Amino acid sequence: MATVLTDARVMTCAEDPRGSLGLIDRGAVVIEGGELAWVGASDDLPAAYRGAETIALGGRLLTPGLIDCHAHPLFAGDRADEFAMRARGASYQEIAAAGGGIAATTGPTRAATVEDLAALTQQRMRRALAAGTTTMEAKSGYDLTLNGERRLLVVARAIDGDPIALEPTLLAHLIPAEARATADREEYVRAFAEDLIPVIAAARLATSVDVYCDEGAYTLSETRTLLTAAREEGLGVRAHVGQFADRGGAELLAELGARSADHLEQVSAAGIAALAAAGTVAVMLPGACVQLRMAPPPVAALRAAGVALAVASDLNPGTSYGETLPIAMWLATTHYAMTVEEAWLGVTRIAARALGLADRGVLAPGRRADLVAWDTTTPAEIPYHFGANLVAAIWRGGVRVHGAIARRP
Amino acid sequence: MATVLTDARVMTCAEDPRGSLGLIDRGAVVIEGGELAWVGASDDLPAAYRGAETIALGGRLLTPGLIDCHAHPLFAGDRADEFAMRARGASYQEIAAAGGGIAATTGPTRAATVEDLAALTQQRMRRALAAGTTTMEAKSGYDLTLNGERRLLVVARAIDGDPIALEPTLLAHLIPAEARATADREEYVRAFAEDLIPVIAAARLATSVDVYCDEGAYTLSETRTLLTAAREEGLGVRAHVGQFADRGGAELLAELGARSADHLEQVSAAGIAALAAAGTVAVMLPGACVQLRMAPPPVAALRAAGVALAVASDLNPGTSYGETLPIAMWLATTHYAMTVEEAWLGVTRIAARALGLADRGVLAPGRRADLVAWDTTTPAEIPYHFGANLVAAIWRGGVRVHGAIARRP
Repeated sequence: MATVLTDARVMTCAEDPRGSLGLIDRGAVVIEGGELAWVGASDDLPAAYRGAETIALGGRLLTPGLIDCHAHPLFAGDRADEFAMRARGASYQEIAAAGGGIAATTGPTRAATVEDLAALTQQRMRRALAAGTTTMEAKSGYDLTLNGERRLLVVARAIDGDPIALEPTLLAHLIPAEARATADREEYVRAFAEDLIPVIAAARLATSVDVYCDEGAYTLSETRTLLTAAREEGLGVRAHVGQFADRGGAELLAELGARSADHLEQVSAAGIAALAAAGTVAVMLPGACVQLRMAPPPVAALRAAGVALAVASDLNPGTSYGETLPIAMWLATTHYAMTVEEAWLGVTRIAARALGLADRGVLAPGRRADLVAWDTTTPAEIPYHFGANLVAAIWRGGVRVHGAIARRP
Repeated sequence: MATVLTDARVMTCAEDPRGSLGLIDRGAVVIEGGELAWVGASDDLPAAYRGAETIALGGRLLTPGLIDCHAHPLFAGDRADEFAMRARGASYQEIAAAGGGIAATTGPTRAATVEDLAALTQQRMRRALAAGTTTMEAKSGYDLTLNGERRLLVVARAIDGDPIALEPTLLAHLIPAEARATADREEYVRAFAEDLIPVIAAARLATSVDVYCDEGAYTLSETRTLLTAAREEGLGVRAHVGQFADRGGAELLAELGARSADHLEQVSAAGIAALAAAGTVAVMLPGACVQLRMAPPPVAALRAAGVALAVASDLNPGTSYGETLPIAMWLATTHYAMTVEEAWLGVTRIAARALGLADRGVLAPGRRADLVAWDTTTPAEIPYHFGANLVAAIWRGGVRVHGAIARRP
C-alpha cells in the first residue's frame, strides 16, 4: 500500500552541514501508513517499492508541509473598519472609542456559537492550506473568560485535521476589562494559573501555554506565575515578549526552558544570550511588524548568538490578518534580512521545534507524510515570487488533500 | 442583450465629495455591449432593464476591475537565485559577478522566442487576473537593443486582452552594457529618441514613454531629450524618478505635463509642489520599497500638496516579483500610511489617469464593463485581509472571465 512520489527535487529540511536545506536532486519519497517510509535519490529506491503506485512530480520541488507556529485563528468579528481607521492615522484611543481594539473581537467571539467559531476558523484553515500550510498553531485568547478560553480550545480540538492540523495553545492574552482593578487582576491571574491551566492540562486541550508579556498586557511577574504553573502541569512554555517594550521576558523564558520567545522587536543582548544558551526558538512575525510600521527585531544579533529562528504568520484580527506563510517568508527575507534558508527552516523544522512537534517539519523516515509539491524547482522562488500561489499539490498524513499534478513547472 | 448585476454594494470610485468611494448600498449595474449602461440603486433600476438577464451578487462588494499602472511583465529568465544572494547580504558587485542584475534578464529575454515571451507574460497576466486586475501596464525595457525593445511591444500587442488588457509603454530602462562609453551612450540616447520613438509612435505600439531617471540609469538631461521626443510624437510622458536619488526628475516631469512620476522615495518640496501644480500622478510602489528595505516616499507631503496617488505592483524580476495588487494595497495602507480610500482610488480611477485611460477606472455609464465582485461587503477588507484571495468573480468588457457567484459572503 505504499505510494512513491518520484522525479522530484526533494528538500528535506533536515540538519545539513552544507546548509543546503537537504536538497536531493532527482529525488523520491515513499509514503506508507501516513508516514514517510523512505527518502532519497530516485536511483536508490529500494526494489521493494518499484512496483508501488508512483506519481511523477515533473522535477518539482517537494518540501515538508508548512508549519505556522504562531497563529490566532480562533475568533469571530471583523476589524476591517478599524484597519481603515488606523490607516487614516486614528489613535488607539480613537479606535477604542469607536468600539475597536480587542473588544471588537472578544464581544463577537463570546457571542458566537461553537458552530460559528468552527466555521470561521475552518475558513482560515482552508486559506492557509491553499498556500501550503499543513499544521497551524491555534491560540486561544479572544474570549478572556476562563470558561470561554476553554471553549475556544474545545472548538480547536473538534476541527483539528479538518482540513489541517491545529496545535492548540492556551494563551493568557490580556487582562479582561472586567478585571482591571488591582484585586480583580490578581484574582484573574491566580484563577488562570491555579484553576484554568490544570483543567486544560488534564483534558489535554492544549500542549503549551503562551503569555503576552508586554506594555498593557501581563507583567513579568504575572508571566512567571502563569508559565511556572504551566510547566508544573507538563505543558510547553512560550511567550510574546518585546513586541513594544523589553520587560526581561527573554531572560525569564530562558530560565524556564521555554520552547519559544515570540516577536522580540525589543530584546537586550543579555536576553539574546540567554535564549541561545537555553535553546529557545525566536519566532519572527514580520506581518505584524510591517503592519505596525515598526523596526525589525535584531535578526543579525540573534543569528550571531546561535538562536534558532522560526517565521510565522501571527494570523490575528488586530495587527496581521493574513494566513499565508509564503508572504511571511517574503517579508522575512526582505524586511527582516533573513536568508532564504532561514525562512524555509523557519516554517518547517524550527517551527516544529517551537511547537514541540517531533513528528514533522523534516522529510525523513518515520515522520508524518505532510508534503507540498511546488510549481518551481528553486527554493528561493517561494519567497521571491510573492503573492503568487505556487502550490501544485499537498499531502497530509499521506493523503492528497489539495491540488493535482498536471503539467511540468 | 443587457445583463443586470444586482444585490451588490457598488463602489463606483467616481469623484465623491463625501470621500466614500462612491458606495451605493443595495446597488446595481447594467452591462450592455461591453459597457456600463446604467449604475445606481437597485430600487431605481429603469423599467427597460427589469426583464433582462439578472445576476444577484448576494450583497457583495462590486468594484471597477483593478488597474496596475506600473508593471514590467515582459521578460524571460528567473532571478530567484539573485534574490537568495541578496537575502544573504551579497553586494551588488557580488551579484553582478555571479551573473545577476539586469544582465540575468536581458540575456534570457533576448534569447527567448516571441512565443516564449508571450507565454511567460500571459502566465503573469493570469496571476494578476486571479487577484482582480483587468488592465496592466506592460513596459518594455528588458532587451535594451532598439529592435528588441520594439519586439517586446509587438509581443504585448499580440497578447493584449488574453486574458487581460495590456497598456503598452516604451521604457528607456538602462544604457545597455555595450553602450557605456560616452560616445556610444550619446548615440544610444540619440537613436532611442530620434529613431525608435517615432517608429513606436507611428506603429502605435505604445501609448507612452517612460524613462528610468536615477543613479546608474538615465541623467536628467538624457531624460529630457527622450521625453521631449515622446511628447513631440504625441505619446504620454512618464518617468521613474527618485527611487534612489533626487535628480530633479519631478520638476522636469511637471514641466513636460507628464502623466505620472513613479517611485519618489526621494523628492524635494519643490518637486512635490511642481507635481501638484501640473496635475501629475505620483505612482507609489511599496513592493519594491519593502524588498529594498528603503524608507517610504513622503506620502503625507504629497497628500498635503494635493498630488493624486496611484498604487501599483512594480512587477519586475529584480526588485518586486509579484503580480498581486491587493498586496500592494496592504503595503500602501501599512508601510506607506496611505488611507484605504487612497489605496482603492490608486488602483482604479487614479491608476487609469496615470495610464491616460478615460474609459475605465470608475463605474459609470459609458465606461468599460470591467468589474470585480468580492467576497466581502467592506472595501477595507481587501487590504486588511492580506494574502487572502477575496475575488468572487470578474467581468472584462462585460464578459465574465473569472470565478463564479455561488454563495453569500
